[in-house]
Amino acid sequence: MPLHPHSSEVLLLDEGFEALIDKNLFPFTMRYLNEAGELTQSQNIKAIITNGAIGLPEKLFDNLPALEMISVFGVGIDRIPLEKVRDKKIKISTTGSISADEVADSALMFLLNLKRNFLKNTAWMKDGSWEKMGEPPLGHSVKNAKIGIVGFGSIGQAIAHRVKALGASVRYYNRSDRGASFQREASLERLAEWSDSLILAIAGTEETSHLIDENILKKLGQNGLLINIARGSVIDEIALISALKHKIIKGAGLDVFQTEPQINPEFYTLSNCILQPHQGSAALETRQAMAMNVIDNLKAYFMHKPLLTPLKGFS
Amino acid sequence: MPLHPHSSEVLLLDEGFEALIDKNLFPFTMRYLNEAGELTQSQNIKAIITNGAIGLPEKLFDNLPALEMISVFGVGIDRIPLEKVRDKKIKISTTGSISADEVADSALMFLLNLKRNFLKNTAWMKDGSWEKMGEPPLGHSVKNAKIGIVGFGSIGQAIAHRVKALGASVRYYNRSDRGASFQREASLERLAEWSDSLILAIAGTEETSHLIDENILKKLGQNGLLINIARGSVIDEIALISALKHKIIKGAGLDVFQTEPQINPEFYTLSNCILQPHQGSAALETRQAMAMNVIDNLKAYFMHKPLLTPLKGFS
Repeated sequence: MPLHPHSSEVLLLDEGFEALIDKNLFPFTMRYLNEAGELTQSQNIKAIITNGAIGLPEKLFDNLPALEMISVFGVGIDRIPLEKVRDKKIKISTTGSISADEVADSALMFLLNLKRNFLKNTAWMKDGSWEKMGEPPLGHSVKNAKIGIVGFGSIGQAIAHRVKALGASVRYYNRSDRGASFQREASLERLAEWSDSLILAIAGTEETSHLIDENILKKLGQNGLLINIARGSVIDEIALISALKHKIIKGAGLDVFQTEPQINPEFYTLSNCILQPHQGSAALETRQAMAMNVIDNLKAYFMHKPLLTPLKGFS
Repeated sequence: MPLHPHSSEVLLLDEGFEALIDKNLFPFTMRYLNEAGELTQSQNIKAIITNGAIGLPEKLFDNLPALEMISVFGVGIDRIPLEKVRDKKIKISTTGSISADEVADSALMFLLNLKRNFLKNTAWMKDGSWEKMGEPPLGHSVKNAKIGIVGFGSIGQAIAHRVKALGASVRYYNRSDRGASFQREASLERLAEWSDSLILAIAGTEETSHLIDENILKKLGQNGLLINIARGSVIDEIALISALKHKIIKGAGLDVFQTEPQINPEFYTLSNCILQPHQGSAALETRQAMAMNVIDNLKAYFMHKPLLTPLKGFS
């Protein structure tokens, strides 16, 4: 069945990703919000494209009477009014596990950089310490390290696959058991106690808000590393900053923050914390694949086919 | 057969690694050079422990009439008078492939940091660009990247194993064929042409000196990355600095340099080059395992057993 572009008016909430879309492959009539962020005409908009950072403001949602389909660039759904989406039987897709490998690579990069002191080593050269003082303090191996993964969906499993290839031991914490290849700990506390490095790969929901608190950081302990490539909301940042300041844990690598891009400025003052501006999936090849998937989900919808990567739990 | 410590006087040329040796496990009588780097008494020294950076100066070698055994901490043998060692039938061991996994992790760390712009991303946050300008320029995936490995011994193979686990394609260049798991290119030139990232894992010998020259860098090309965790001598550094300055290649990650620790200061001025002070194997756990291996080779020698990790080609 052919597409009917004129009956398929699509609203793009995220200008940034337009550059990634090949217009020749994009047969829809596209519209943007005006400069004030308002919609002048909304009667014909059947679908929207958005991302995790923008989501779908409720006021806008209420202004889209013809909305049938939401295609999310990424996996973040915490800023979409999901109850209303469900009530109105609107279809919704994310890019699913397409970015899982890229995000897992980011986690591995943080792990190697922290274990092996990469930023400190580069600084050791630049300030002349190598010549004056010889070798910098030794780092630690990823091999034989104990890596605890919180959340064992596609990203968590991709991380497990990688660190296992480097010779590390892996355990995880997840509501449901994800099979016998890796050991599941009965509680997050127990996982934190066992781990020397805790990697967060769990969805940012109300349930997981501030999951990593003072108690969990204490369990992780003074040799422990914390890596977050999930969502900033998963960590109680005040507790984390305190733990880093007082060496309750050894270090942290953060890709995401409770407030982005204006993060808590104290993070910049901590020498045992390395930071990246939400770049988990930020490789051209992966962002292009995600953009294609966003479009392919829309096409599938308008051609009355099943969505490629529907959001679980929504039909 | 028990060890006879008094007949086993050992000279340590490397003070730095003494800290890694558990003295209770070290039954030998140890001696050091005096402050002037001279040896006052040398008649009873049957064995020495050295490393790749110090090697064994020929003058010292000629002063050790009782020398029977050289135990090298690491794999660097370019500063040892190997012909004389062979002529006098002196036994020699290195730490073999014990550090291969650690060095391979270093290569992977460089690859991820270069592909994903880690240092630029951290700077993007610190100077406030995230707030002012939004997301930094996108990096590139390791997944589906074309990784060329130069030298396919234990380190090269450990690198291949890792990048394959991340979904990259691997080819290699090595004098001898190392089996069918990965494709061997007939020449270094062809490997450089095929690769988007070239990782050097080849021994530093006279033969491999300046193997990476202007020609190979041109073949690697303007999207190409060069990573060296082998020996500084393998690269023509003047050609590399020029290639980085004029964007003949895209970037480089260097763990080793022709002169260490006083490196060519131009490296510090290149924004597309990331540097580490020879930390390939620098994890406490691995250095400890290497130290144990150094001792175990000595023990084996004095107990008339085969060396654990003899240098290939010496008996």
